[in-house]
Amino acid sequence: MEDPQASKNTLEIVREWLEQMANKLPPSIDDLPTGFYDALLLQGLQVDHAERGRILCTLKVPPRLVNAGKFMHGGATAAFVDVIGSAAIFTTGATSSGVSVEINVSYLDAAKLGEEIEIDAKVLRIGRVIAFVNVDLRKKETGQLVAQGRHTKYLPVISKL
Amino acid sequence: MEDPQASKNTLEIVREWLEQMANKLPPSIDDLPTGFYDALLLQGLQVDHAERGRILCTLKVPPRLVNAGKFMHGGATAAFVDVIGSAAIFTTGATSSGVSVEINVSYLDAAKLGEEIEIDAKVLRIGRVIAFVNVDLRKKETGQLVAQGRHTKYLPVISKL
Amino acid sequence: MEDPQASKNTLEIVREWLEQMANKLPPSIDDLPTGFYDALLLQGLQVDHAERGRILCTLKVPPRLVNAGKFMHGGATAAFVDVIGSAAIFTTGATSSGVSVEINVSYLDAAKLGEEIEIDAKVLRIGRVIAFVNVDLRKKETGQLVAQGRHTKYLPVISKL
Amino acid sequence: MEDPQASKNTLEIVREWLEQMANKLPPSIDDLPTGFYDALLLQGLQVDHAERGRILCTLKVPPRLVNAGKFMHGGATAAFVDVIGSAAIFTTGATSSGVSVEINVSYLDAAKLGEEIEIDAKVLRIGRVIAFVNVDLRKKETGQLVAQGRHTKYLPVISKL
Repeated sequence: MEDPQASKNTLEIVREWLEQMANKLPPSIDDLPTGFYDALLLQGLQVDHAERGRILCTLKVPPRLVNAGKFMHGGATAAFVDVIGSAAIFTTGATSSGVSVEINVSYLDAAKLGEEIEIDAKVLRIGRVIAFVNVDLRKKETGQLVAQGRHTKYLPVISKL
Repeated sequence: MEDPQASKNTLEIVREWLEQMANKLPPSIDDLPTGFYDALLLQGLQVDHAERGRILCTLKVPPRLVNAGKFMHGGATAAFVDVIGSAAIFTTGATSSGVSVEINVSYLDAAKLGEEIEIDAKVLRIGRVIAFVNVDLRKKETGQLVAQGRHTKYLPVISKL
Repeated sequence: MEDPQASKNTLEIVREWLEQMANKLPPSIDDLPTGFYDALLLQGLQVDHAERGRILCTLKVPPRLVNAGKFMHGGATAAFVDVIGSAAIFTTGATSSGVSVEINVSYLDAAKLGEEIEIDAKVLRIGRVIAFVNVDLRKKETGQLVAQGRHTKYLPVISKL
Repeated sequence: MEDPQASKNTLEIVREWLEQMANKLPPSIDDLPTGFYDALLLQGLQVDHAERGRILCTLKVPPRLVNAGKFMHGGATAAFVDVIGSAAIFTTGATSSGVSVEINVSYLDAAKLGEEIEIDAKVLRIGRVIAFVNVDLRKKETGQLVAQGRHTKYLPVISKL
């Protein structure tokens, strides 16, 4: 049977962890400007190739994007599906990269701190109002998939005058 | 017909934007420690309620988590589905919050800079090896959904000895 | 090391299974009319409740919708997320139930042949052009989730004149 | 303002449609055997290619799998992601094709009644306990994507003696 004491302790541990995290950074963090989240993600990224409908980049996984286990943070992986996927949509000449409708990510393997990964975003379709892009994250050395995601966007402005 | 010049310019614009973003921050950013990504996300978060299988938090959308349009970054939303979803799994007494298998997010509405949002993570099922959690992000004032996501994790350690 | 013979046999087994399945039914199956797929799925469904933005139904899992293991077919579960989700969108007065953009399903538990399940579709948001609906499949007896899915649709016709 | 009468009528229309669908087929439909759902889906499918980790098939969209608009049913598309994805996992020598954890599908374009489509399932990764497979549905004539899905399975039996 479940131990109510244990259960209570578990709750306290989770609450304490979240509250500790919520107060970890100095107050100056609140002065970080709009756009910092993108900058933090993309710092050090190298664009290897750009063509209509495709962007290929390389990134060496930095300390700031890994979790406690020193593997790339799942939230950072999802953010790459968001941002690099949006960049790929832009290459098609869309006047806006649109508004996110859906993002999904399958996590296939861990990317370690310091490991070089390739981020490969390919537009699957640009419809009149909906765009679909697939984003693969691979280990550069072996080509093994780290994650695969899809990003679906609504393109509100389609007039190109 | 498509204007090849325009197309070339589009590619250059995308490449330049990415490369500019990749070099925006001072070199000191590389000294940011492991775990920074979580800290950046969770700073200022308030835990309103924690029970077995559920975590409810409040956050006022800070400048550092918004995009150029001053709306909460889609990558940050996905990261909350990851992190707060994992915290909810922990509350069930799992000895590990597991390894992410899948994250999906539907973006229903924009959360503005300064707006208070509620993040509500509910465990749907903890199986022997797979855990499922649903995460809703709502506007605190109106209760309107900003995003809904699901996070599926593999629980490699289940022995509780 | 991998046995090449075994590997060859595996391929043959898969191919044979698919080809056998592809020729299992009498030629008369080709005369089945348009709309049969919906009818096959919905036969025997009971509508328990319908309100603006929500449909609640009950179904006793029939032999025709179970797989070889006598559990509800994952494809049938996804089809319910599609069809009952669309019906829920219709209840909001949309002049069209729209075109599917995305469907996702998490499979939490098996529904057995003969088991009564509840299908509960709730509209999360009807935007100007995009609609989101959540669909839960639960065991009627225990309320335990069998599956949870989300269906995102594009609503091409929005004029209600 | 919303017309309550109209709203009531909408609800009645949805309820009537579902109830009509639920009673459309003759009672003999209840005698259809276990496994019928797969057979109905796969009838007429042609396996073009099978190798370790990949299955490529062709199907001419039959009347029984189209919706009222004479386009392939979204539920059938999801069922192909399920079934052909599982077949691809089997080709790797897995002793079981496992249990579905997640299926997602993006609907990019419509496949018309009578149109030839190609279903291409590629295993992304077979881990120790989790397998990931990507399934593309394309128009055979143009190669244009109709849908892209991912199927994630848990492999409970991995011992091969």
